[in-house]
Amino acid sequence: MTERVLRILGIPGSLRRESYNRGLLLAAQELAPPGVELELYEVRELPLYDEDLERTGPPDQVLHFKQAIARADALLIATPEYNWSVPGPLKNAIDWASRPPATSPLRRKPVALMGASTGISGTIRAQLALRQIFASTESYVLPKPDLFVREAATLFRDGRLVDRETRERIRQLLEALVAWTLRFRD
Amino acid sequence: MTERVLRILGIPGSLRRESYNRGLLLAAQELAPPGVELELYEVRELPLYDEDLERTGPPDQVLHFKQAIARADALLIATPEYNWSVPGPLKNAIDWASRPPATSPLRRKPVALMGASTGISGTIRAQLALRQIFASTESYVLPKPDLFVREAATLFRDGRLVDRETRERIRQLLEALVAWTLRFRD
Amino acid sequence: MTERVLRILGIPGSLRRESYNRGLLLAAQELAPPGVELELYEVRELPLYDEDLERTGPPDQVLHFKQAIARADALLIATPEYNWSVPGPLKNAIDWASRPPATSPLRRKPVALMGASTGISGTIRAQLALRQIFASTESYVLPKPDLFVREAATLFRDGRLVDRETRERIRQLLEALVAWTLRFRD
Amino acid sequence: MTERVLRILGIPGSLRRESYNRGLLLAAQELAPPGVELELYEVRELPLYDEDLERTGPPDQVLHFKQAIARADALLIATPEYNWSVPGPLKNAIDWASRPPATSPLRRKPVALMGASTGISGTIRAQLALRQIFASTESYVLPKPDLFVREAATLFRDGRLVDRETRERIRQLLEALVAWTLRFRD
Repeated sequence: MTERVLRILGIPGSLRRESYNRGLLLAAQELAPPGVELELYEVRELPLYDEDLERTGPPDQVLHFKQAIARADALLIATPEYNWSVPGPLKNAIDWASRPPATSPLRRKPVALMGASTGISGTIRAQLALRQIFASTESYVLPKPDLFVREAATLFRDGRLVDRETRERIRQLLEALVAWTLRFRD
Repeated sequence: MTERVLRILGIPGSLRRESYNRGLLLAAQELAPPGVELELYEVRELPLYDEDLERTGPPDQVLHFKQAIARADALLIATPEYNWSVPGPLKNAIDWASRPPATSPLRRKPVALMGASTGISGTIRAQLALRQIFASTESYVLPKPDLFVREAATLFRDGRLVDRETRERIRQLLEALVAWTLRFRD
Repeated sequence: MTERVLRILGIPGSLRRESYNRGLLLAAQELAPPGVELELYEVRELPLYDEDLERTGPPDQVLHFKQAIARADALLIATPEYNWSVPGPLKNAIDWASRPPATSPLRRKPVALMGASTGISGTIRAQLALRQIFASTESYVLPKPDLFVREAATLFRDGRLVDRETRERIRQLLEALVAWTLRFRD
Repeated sequence: MTERVLRILGIPGSLRRESYNRGLLLAAQELAPPGVELELYEVRELPLYDEDLERTGPPDQVLHFKQAIARADALLIATPEYNWSVPGPLKNAIDWASRPPATSPLRRKPVALMGASTGISGTIRAQLALRQIFASTESYVLPKPDLFVREAATLFRDGRLVDRETRERIRQLLEALVAWTLRFRD
């Protein structure tokens, strides 16, 4: 249907080296359908959002992050849940990318959400918070399927997601994200 | 009623030097009733939350922030609204303070919320997000009164809050926070 | 661009006869672009949602409501805010329409939101709640523009919305909803 | 500690006869500590909230419901989750009870939340929505412990909650609610 490659930017919401959420995105890289490239972006290097800093000229890391979003056809966020909401460092990255609103690369950008927790919440509340935040940025969040990964520690071996069902659900999420993204392409 | 001084820690959610939210807290310092001390804390120095960093030993700024919360009898948050939610840097600070949950100084800590925006939302959504987050940390958020400060630029002169009505509402909020805090003191 | 008429079902979230939210929808009827029909639906006749009733066979009013949604190309909700959230009667109607999920007429239905309050909140929180609810039903909620109508009593005369700016914003919302709806039409 | 009996009003959020949430409340009745009475209230008889009806004089069922809340020292809500939020009929009941705000029996009323789902969400989102709603009514929602009952069908036998762990957690919730309620009694 398209000869152009579709580029997805995967953003882990956790800074932890052995993060299960980064693990979900590494699995997504393996599972990406032909013609889809999935690149990971780490929010670790961004400073705390400061409007003064934005006005005097944001640091290179911020420009780099915004360019990576602008170049991508869609975003795939893999988020943990901190205190029933989005992790501070991930919200911080979104705050930088959202500014200024009129030219934000988040605007009209298709986005899919997933998340893993070691407990049983499966990041339900963090993903709700992200839906609200991405409505504000006028991003297009894929409504379904959901991907709430519970008890993540049991699904990985040597840092790699080995659980078949979760891998299949990631594959379906990618497929839905591709269709959703093409719908918004003129 | 009490001879002990009541200590409130005021936390501005914005890093901007001329922040209206810091301005609300400066006004609150002027308006604090006798026997109430209000100290400000800036979240600017905290690194991005990283579980690896937490395990190997959080940096001094984090310990310092947690001690400041532990010493306070109550918190007073003054938050802007970024993307219909809590600012990333403020959420980041809360994430550090919440860890580990069993010994977090946020636990059972009375908290009051206020916020200022230049537009007309008055930080309604940011404060909703904070209520959800502080339910997770088992903090005791004062239910009323609300303080949603709209069109903040019109209420300040030379960086100082001069609007009478807003000043009166801050005074009432402080009074309610003091009563709420004493209720939870054994 | 299309010869088919586009049908929008307008649903007021209030039962009050002189409801400002119904008034917004009546204005929208006047402002609908050529080729767009806007019909109003009142949720007043629906019983309280009861799973037992659903199983034994829902009453005719429920079937009628679901058919009206199914026939519509898009929904336009005009909601008041009750207790910082969606009105009970409106949520009740959505609950009926959402069942059973696999065949719900809400699934993949484009939806736009607006709302009026007599105070200054402008139904911000009710609309946030609706976005969350319609994510659950896999409905496609228009991300922008927002329409938060404040101090509604000042904008109406003899039950008719006369405020020019609000009328213009309703017109823009309808236009955006039409474009959004056509995007999802195969 | 107190010689007065503590009265808790238990409100099931579902109308279904065999509701697991009503089942949680029936278990709570068995588990109530000495000196605590737990009465159930069904929201089934309330009409849809209508401001016109409120003005001309609400029906007897509404007055009866508000009196039952006023007489109770605390509320215990057991809610299912409908469309990622509070059930319409339960929100409808809260809307009636909240009016008019200045004399609402919900004001300053201690409230505890629990909920059961047949799936794995455990009503996390419905309870979040309720926290937001009860902040609006200035009710005092118990922050912890949480009680998210998953896969409820496996925990009941002949309509009675038999799962030991869930029963123990209900007992702890009641205990915490009693302490929370006494804290707010002058």
